[in-house]
Parts: sequence; structure tokens; C-alpha cells
Amino acid sequence: MSFGYHRRILRVNLTDGQITIETPDDVFYRRYLGGAGFVAYYLLKEVPPDTDPLGSENRLIFACGPLTGAPLAGSGRNAIGARSPLTGAMGESEVGGFWGAELKAAGFDAIIVQGQAASPVYLWVHDGQAELRDAAHLWRLENKATHAAIREELGEKRARIALCGPAGEKLVRYANVMADLKHAAGRTGLGAVMGAKRLKAVAVRGTGKVPLADPAQVGALARWMRGNYRDLMGAFPDLGTGISMVPYNRDGALPVHNFRDGHLDGADVLGREGLAEHVVVRMESCYACAVGCKKVASLDEPYPVDPAYGGTEYETAVSLGPNCGVTDVYAVTKASERCNALGLDTISVGGTIAFAMECFEEGLLTPEDTGGLDMRFGNTEVMLQLLELIAARQGIGDLLAEGSKRAAERIGGGAERLAVHVKGQELPYHDPRIQHGLGLGYAVSYTGADHMHNAFDGSYEHEAGLDSVRNLGVLEPMPATWLGPEKVRAIIYGSLRRHLDNCLCLCDFLPYRNDQVVEAVRAVTGWDTTAWELWKAAERLVTMARAFNVRQGFTPADDRLPPRMAEPLGPGEPIDPAALKAALPLYYEMMGWDPITGVPRAAKLYELGIGWVTGLLEDV
Amino acid sequence: MSFGYHRRILRVNLTDGQITIETPDDVFYRRYLGGAGFVAYYLLKEVPPDTDPLGSENRLIFACGPLTGAPLAGSGRNAIGARSPLTGAMGESEVGGFWGAELKAAGFDAIIVQGQAASPVYLWVHDGQAELRDAAHLWRLENKATHAAIREELGEKRARIALCGPAGEKLVRYANVMADLKHAAGRTGLGAVMGAKRLKAVAVRGTGKVPLADPAQVGALARWMRGNYRDLMGAFPDLGTGISMVPYNRDGALPVHNFRDGHLDGADVLGREGLAEHVVVRMESCYACAVGCKKVASLDEPYPVDPAYGGTEYETAVSLGPNCGVTDVYAVTKASERCNALGLDTISVGGTIAFAMECFEEGLLTPEDTGGLDMRFGNTEVMLQLLELIAARQGIGDLLAEGSKRAAERIGGGAERLAVHVKGQELPYHDPRIQHGLGLGYAVSYTGADHMHNAFDGSYEHEAGLDSVRNLGVLEPMPATWLGPEKVRAIIYGSLRRHLDNCLCLCDFLPYRNDQVVEAVRAVTGWDTTAWELWKAAERLVTMARAFNVRQGFTPADDRLPPRMAEPLGPGEPIDPAALKAALPLYYEMMGWDPITGVPRAAKLYELGIGWVTGLLEDV
Repeated sequence: MSFGYHRRILRVNLTDGQITIETPDDVFYRRYLGGAGFVAYYLLKEVPPDTDPLGSENRLIFACGPLTGAPLAGSGRNAIGARSPLTGAMGESEVGGFWGAELKAAGFDAIIVQGQAASPVYLWVHDGQAELRDAAHLWRLENKATHAAIREELGEKRARIALCGPAGEKLVRYANVMADLKHAAGRTGLGAVMGAKRLKAVAVRGTGKVPLADPAQVGALARWMRGNYRDLMGAFPDLGTGISMVPYNRDGALPVHNFRDGHLDGADVLGREGLAEHVVVRMESCYACAVGCKKVASLDEPYPVDPAYGGTEYETAVSLGPNCGVTDVYAVTKASERCNALGLDTISVGGTIAFAMECFEEGLLTPEDTGGLDMRFGNTEVMLQLLELIAARQGIGDLLAEGSKRAAERIGGGAERLAVHVKGQELPYHDPRIQHGLGLGYAVSYTGADHMHNAFDGSYEHEAGLDSVRNLGVLEPMPATWLGPEKVRAIIYGSLRRHLDNCLCLCDFLPYRNDQVVEAVRAVTGWDTTAWELWKAAERLVTMARAFNVRQGFTPADDRLPPRMAEPLGPGEPIDPAALKAALPLYYEMMGWDPITGVPRAAKLYELGIGWVTGLLEDV
Repeated sequence: MSFGYHRRILRVNLTDGQITIETPDDVFYRRYLGGAGFVAYYLLKEVPPDTDPLGSENRLIFACGPLTGAPLAGSGRNAIGARSPLTGAMGESEVGGFWGAELKAAGFDAIIVQGQAASPVYLWVHDGQAELRDAAHLWRLENKATHAAIREELGEKRARIALCGPAGEKLVRYANVMADLKHAAGRTGLGAVMGAKRLKAVAVRGTGKVPLADPAQVGALARWMRGNYRDLMGAFPDLGTGISMVPYNRDGALPVHNFRDGHLDGADVLGREGLAEHVVVRMESCYACAVGCKKVASLDEPYPVDPAYGGTEYETAVSLGPNCGVTDVYAVTKASERCNALGLDTISVGGTIAFAMECFEEGLLTPEDTGGLDMRFGNTEVMLQLLELIAARQGIGDLLAEGSKRAAERIGGGAERLAVHVKGQELPYHDPRIQHGLGLGYAVSYTGADHMHNAFDGSYEHEAGLDSVRNLGVLEPMPATWLGPEKVRAIIYGSLRRHLDNCLCLCDFLPYRNDQVVEAVRAVTGWDTTAWELWKAAERLVTMARAFNVRQGFTPADDRLPPRMAEPLGPGEPIDPAALKAALPLYYEMMGWDPITGVPRAAKLYELGIGWVTGLLEDV
């Protein structure tokens, strides 16, 4: 008997409609864990170089982890992955809510989707069964309508549904996958992969439970978190994300005007207190979670905002707020709602709009290009209008639907220097110029810039912050705007916890200590595992992802930061490209990769128990 | 407040008699742990290249670990180290018994001895105090007499005493340090370092306790071991070491006649059952240990054997038994007693005698060389006589006191091919030809061939054996006589536990699971540590030791096995030197060392938090 997973993985071929169930052995689960680990495994095994991300041969993987669905705060997550249409690299994003737990309740650990449907379909997975159903009538519907229609026709009010929105159908390269209406697998354009496959949705419903090896111990951990999260999380359970907005703005380190500036008068209202005061009507939780950190916003005017679409997270607030020069709390709330309705990644869409606004101000885009839109920073109505144009690929929206990197290439005239992305993916809204290790992390992330794959230098500046890595052996504090060897190590060690969480499908917000994560996996799976085994699994994920990207043609030249990061920023220190370039070989070599080529060494692959990958890298 | 250690390290300069107390910070303890970790640290910091192992500038380090002296089975250990006079490499050996726990009770974590006394002295450490005392009257005494005299003149019957025997005084290159009379820090010639420094003994007595962070948890672990060791250890608590003798002999894999043969009629009596029947009068324990695995032998005739010197362990039984062609259980018991009285490493002395016997049979040594001794295999009396000659450096003993490597060089005529050593240290009595990974381990051990630094392939042949490494991520069994990449990894992972134990000073015999070791360290020290941090500390030790050896001139050419291992052995497979040579680069690279030079890479040093070592390797 296995615990924590079912040893059942669904494989769905949309081309011929065939649905099969695969039953990997326990060694497979223990080696790759789940979530991002499964995504990396299947992409590396099944998606060869030059596979068109928007073609039939790409894989789309929905993967739970061993903790998904366990009765434990933070366990309502799953990963989704594919070769990214935005970056061409490994695409992967994690999502909270209830969908993953529901898939586990339905008796499956993961779904691998391949092929391409001739006409729109959705997948209906319920208690060990799976079927493809026609979705032609749902095509073009926004998410709420799709969601309601599927629940209605299935007669299953409790179905949880992963959705491809209108933006995904239109192959917007940063279209997201929404789990129900409030939870976004935001990054790397996975919605476009769904759209390309003509897979409108994956609805799941299950009445089973995740088998637990030691229910009492799982219960004890759950009780510990319920009893302690308030003391450990400050105001987070009341206010959610957004603590950084006000201090960043005060210090001049807030991403403003496409990362050009660090402060914007009036932006403070977009911090979590401002949102609470003006637009948030309640806080909600994900599956089994004690912490209600998810905002729900509702408004009648000046913009009607439907609470079904949740509320504005920090990244969204900066992206569509100050980064576009916008400080209108109502407009930003509306923008968040529209992104969730249309299926747009708020980070990338805001980054792309901000990029376009700067191009407009610099004369690289003219009113002729924009169809007469006055795309100056701070034009709130234009920001809102662009969301619609992008999702529909209309007018200037068609260009911006390609993301800032491709748009810059088409615009030309030096627009590239204004495009704030890594590998084509727009930067999240924590400026690396005040945290140089995070900059390194953005540069090397296998998905392009991604704050959920990284550790923050600020944590390691003071003794107290070291608590998260001291039990990995990082024992001494170090400055945030510094990229010395000890920092490279601290960032690697800190990031591995994120990657581990993404394999286990455990929420990063929950203040589980490293040793408690080990305890949770032991209690759920019954494995006598250790931190060594689990952190090595995280290394394995990162190394498999690297191998995938290497095969897709990525080189160390792609591990760079946008030119803007070398420009001054108030309290920050520009990141000298030469300093970053000097840190890269050290990072690679610490990871067991070749310092010049960045290709994982055979010794590291064998050391991680994935010697089979050596064969895939022979011709690289 | 620190737990598990005192933050007090004694430094004794024998040249000027100065004694000081150093108080490193907690980061130091957490980074290097103790035991072998401290030995590696101080040797690397303070013993530059070309330091004469028998000179004033060598350091002699007695180091406890955080677990030494905790009320926990297996915690009565400490490490001793110096640059080895036998190998020139890092010399280090661990020892059980009571001495280490007593040093902790006296308020010190370690003693660093430097310089050289003008005339013999001993060190007396008691409850926070330390003094050097004259030992001129003790010089030339055998261990029991020295031990009794020191206790007598200190008026302290409970003093625990680490002793340099007559062999150490005579600079026999494999002289050991005996802790009291029964517990040997056997390997790498540390007794000769004591002798060269004219340090006859270190007597310790303390009435303090090791401060424990969580006494209740330590107690729970201790109770667990008391309640379970019998089920987990089979007959070990009743019979001690020696389970392998009979099966090895049956299978033709026992080291016989200088590893030339694999079976010897009559050798079975030297197995643990035979010893129990013929010579063992009781079993004893080390400090705080539930398991009484230490044999005590007593005899009146044919040889008087003093039970004060303990009994015959497996390595001793093979070394001075079948490896020399001897099957007389009484003579081997006497030989064990004499080695402990004289301070001779039983493994190396037996290996050297066996080598000489084969030389004699091959005509490379003649009766003229041996002073008329008939040194054929199986000459029991000559074996016993040679122990005395070696300890006194008389006749042929003077040559053999140099160890088999140096002796072979002097004998010439191809004697080197009969010398069964790595880096000058004689092989322990587990033949690598039936366990190829162990062969790799012997080849790369920083001390030369050492079974206590290594993992055994046999454990990884079947699912059950994997229990010791499965929670490090080694998930699939593999053949014993195979040296593929997965084996290299398994051996590294398995060996790291040994190295960790040697830093913590925890006995390898106790069946603590990996996760329980983590638990023990947490409970004793109060650190919120993880397996990741602890196994990385083991990597740190091995890497520091490698750096030390690199600085002393060792290269990959020294990481080889003796020619005998390429010869056939009954059930075994010869280890093809080419296969070993092919595995080395993979081993190095898995360790983060350069695959060609074997030198630790800067990235690995920084990754282990010991960037300071890069400066020491710059000119290498």
C-alpha cells in the first residue's frame, strides 16, 4: 500500500481521444516526488528539442504532490507545466485553491495531456473515471460563464475546474490557467498551451481521500499550524499579500514606470491596508488551510467588480498599478478581476503594458501604432482597455499578446533595453537591485524570472532571517546588495526549499520549518525520509529543468538580467552585468553543472539518481 | 548557553609548557561539529606542507564531538588526529571507551597538542584545570604499568588515560594510542606522534556533565535504544565483532596469507563463537552504552592473557590469525593482549607481518635478514615474537616497524607487489574483491585504507540493506562486485554517515537510523538541525581532509589499490585497476573535486561554507 499518492496517472491524448491510466512504481514517486518534479520528468522524457509549444506534440502536465490533498494547511496546491510558449523553456506554474486536492480525491496524482483536439473539448475526471466532452459551446466564454456552464451540465456543483480563458484560446503567450476563478497558475503561458490543444477546461470531482501513513502525526502538525500561524505570520492572515508595497515605496525601491523609478506618490493605497480599506470584503482560504490569506474584492462603482474572481494580490497590484504609473485602487481591482476572467497572467501583462507605455513615452510606439491610444504612464483607462485588446489580440493588443521580449524585437529601435524580462518572462515586482542574490535567481530560474522559485536576500541580512536556512548550514548573515560566493550558496540553499515545496505542492506562505516539511512528508507518505533526500529531490528537479532547457537551446547567455537592472535605483545598487557574469560559473559549479556551458555534469546526474539524463545530453 | 559542548578547547605547547584555553564561537561548533571535523580543521589550518609528522610542528588533536559524553548509547567516543607518520596524509582514528566522555566531564571539548617536550611528560586534565607532569619514570613502561602509576600518583582511581605505549616511544609508524587499556585509536600511527612529542599520556578526570538542550528527548532516544538493540543487532551484544569470519572462510573470501588466499582450514575458531567458547570471559560496554560488545579475554595457559587488556576484535583476529596463516585461538588472543600492552595497531602490524612472511616464502627476505627467524606463514611463535621485536625496533622488527610500504621499498626485488596497503596504510580485513565499492572507498580514504570510513557494498545488494541509505535517496539495489556510477554514489552517501558519526563521535555499531542521528543532535545541542546540514558537515570533513592531503603532495595516483586486489580470489572478482581508474573521476566530480587532479573545487569549498580553504589551494 502506498500513502500520499494513488500510483495512478491519467494520460489523455486529445488527438485520438484515448485515455489511459499509468501506474508508476513507488521508486518513481519517491525519486521525483510530484508537482514540479513530475513536470520536469515528463517534459524531459517526452518533449524533444524544437517541439512547438503551441503544437500537438507539447505535453501539458497537471501534477499533484504527495502532500496535495492531505488535511494540512498549505496542501491545496498542484503544479501545471508544458514547454512554455512565452520562453521556449520549461514552463511551470503552481496554483493553490482546491483543484489539486480534488484531483487527488478523484483518485489521480497527475494528468498528462498530449495531442490536439480537432474541436474544443473539456476533460471530466471523477472518482477514478475520465472522459472528454464537447466544449464547442464554451469557446469564447469568459471564465465565470464557462465555470458555471460546466458545473451545470455535469450536474456537479462541487466540481473544481481548471480553465483556459479567452486569452488562452487566442494564444496570448502569457495566458494563464485559472483553477476555478480565483486561483491562477499564472506564469509561463500555460493557458495558451491549453488553448492550442483546444482543451477548454479540466473539471474534477472526487469523494475519496488521500491515504495517510500516519494520520495522527498529520493531525498533530495540522493542529500545530492552527495554533501557531497567527503568532508566526503577523498580519498576513488578516491582510494577505502586499506588505512590501508601502516600505518599498517609502524607500524608493518599488517597481514604478516599468522599473524605471522607485517611488510613486499615491501608490501606498495599493498596499494591503489600502486594499483592505477600499475594496476587500472578506478573506478566504485554500483547501484545508487555516490561513485565510486570499483577498476577495467587491465593488459596485466606479467599476463593478465581481467577488467571484477573488481579489488583488501584491504582484497584481504593482504590475497593473505603479509599474504602469497607476494608483487608482478601484481600477487596479477591476484590472485584477478582468485578468482572472480573461485568463491573463497579471505579472506579465502588466510588465508588457508598462514596457509599451515606456516605448510610447520614448516615441518608439506612436499613436499610429496604438490605434490612437494615449499610452502614457498613468493612463488608467488605457491600462484597462489594453487588457481587453490583448486577450482578444485586437489592435496593439495583438503585438502585446506576444510579451515584452517579442514585442521589443518587432518594435526595434532599441526597445529591447526597455523590456524587463528574463528569457522572455517579465520580472515579478521585487526589484533585484536591492537584493542581488534574487537577481542571480531571476537570471537562472528555469522558467525565466520567477519569485516563487527563489529566495530573498533580505532574509539573510540579519540573524533572525537566517532561521529559514540555518538548519541547512548557512550560519552567518550577509549584505543584501552583494553577490559573493557565500551569497550564491545561500540563494541556492534557500531556493531549494522553494523547489521542494513545488514538488511536494506545499504553499510557500505557510511558516513550516524545514524540519517540519520533512516531518509532514514522513507522516503522509510513510517514507522514513530525511532532509537530505528531500533537498536532493529539489536539486533533481532544478537539474532536470536545466537539462530540458539545454536541449531546447538555452545557454549561459540566456541567464542574464534585463539592462534596466544595471541602471541606478534610489536605495539600490545597480547589478553590474560583469558581476552577474562572474557569479554564474560559481552558481553552475555549485549546482554540479559545467561552469562554462552550464550543462549538468554526468557526475551530478548520477549523483542525483538520474543517470538516464546523460543520454539526452550527449549531443549537446 | 551552548549545549552539547563547553566552548572550551585546551591548547598545550609542549615546547614551552604553555597551556591556554580557546573559546571558539557557536558557529565554529556548528560548522565543524567536532571529532574528525575538528581534526581536519586544525590540521588544515595549522600543519603546512612538509611538516615532519614526527617533528615538533605536527599537531596532535584529541577531539570530542557534540554527542561525546551524552547519556546515550554509543556516545563514549572521541577522535585523535595528526599528520600521519605512516602515510604522510591526514592521520585520524576514533576510539571508544570512556576517555572522551571523561574529557567532556572535565569541561573541555578538545585538546590541541603542539611542540615537543624536552623530556617525557604527561598531561593531567581535571575539572577545568590542566597541567603537564614529569613522565621520565614512566618511559619504557608498558601500558598497564603506566596506567596504574599515573592513577596512583594522581590519587585518582577514576582517571581515564590515553596512552603512548612502548611502540609509540620507539616511533613505530603504526603505533596506536590506547584509551585506558582496552580501547584503541588504532590507525595511522598516532602513538608515534605522541612518542615523538614525548607525551606519554593524557589523563583526564571530570565531575561535570555535558549540558543537554532537551534531556527528556535524549532520555527517550536512550530508552528506545535500550529497548530495541537486541532485536536490531542479533547476536552482536552477546558475541561482539567477528560475525564475518566463518562465512568469509566458507566462501573463500577471508583474507588469508597476506590476502593471497581466501580460505584457511581451522580459522573458524577465530570467529566470534569460537572466541566466546575458548577465551572470552565476559562482555563489557563503553560509556553509557547498553550494548556490551567488547570482549574480555582471560587465559592462564598456554599463554597467560591479562583481562585488563580486553579481548580480540574481528580485525585483530584475522590480521594476526589467518592473514599470517595462524589458527591458534590462544596465540591470537595473546597477540591481541600484547598489541594493547605495547601500543601497536593490530591491523597494520598483522598486515606488515603477513607481508614479511610472504616475502620470506618468496625468498625476498632470507633467514639472514630475519636474524634466523623462520618467517613462514603459520609460524605462530614467530608471529608473537615479531610483535615484541617491532615494538622494540629490534632486528627485523626495526624494518617492519616502518610498515609494509616502506619495508617493501627497502626490501626491493618486487616486494612492492606483495605490500597490501593504500597510501602506506595496511588494508583492513574485508576484501574489496567481493565488494568493489569498498575498494573504491579504500582507495580514496583520506587516511589510507580504513573500514571505519567506508560503506560496504553487501548492504546495497538487497532491498533490506538499502534501509541504511534509502532515506538519503538510494532507492534501488545493485550488485556488490560492480563499480558503476550508481555504486559510486551509494558508496559516497553511505560513507558520509560514517564520516558524520566520526564528527559527532557516535559509535557506528549502534543501529541508529539516519533520522535518529539528526534527532540525537537536535536533542543534545538544541540546534534545529537537519540531515542536510549534518551530511554536508560530513562532506565538509572529507573535503577538508582532501585539501590537507593535496597540500601534502597527494595526487590521484595515490588513490589506488594494492596489486593484490587485481589478482583472482575465490568467489570474488579481481578489481581491474583500469575500472578503478575510470571510477575515480566520477567519484571526484560527485564530491565536487576536479576529475583530473582530485583537488576540491572553489565552488565546492564555498558551497560547504569553507571558502577560506581556497587560499590554501591556490598554489597547488
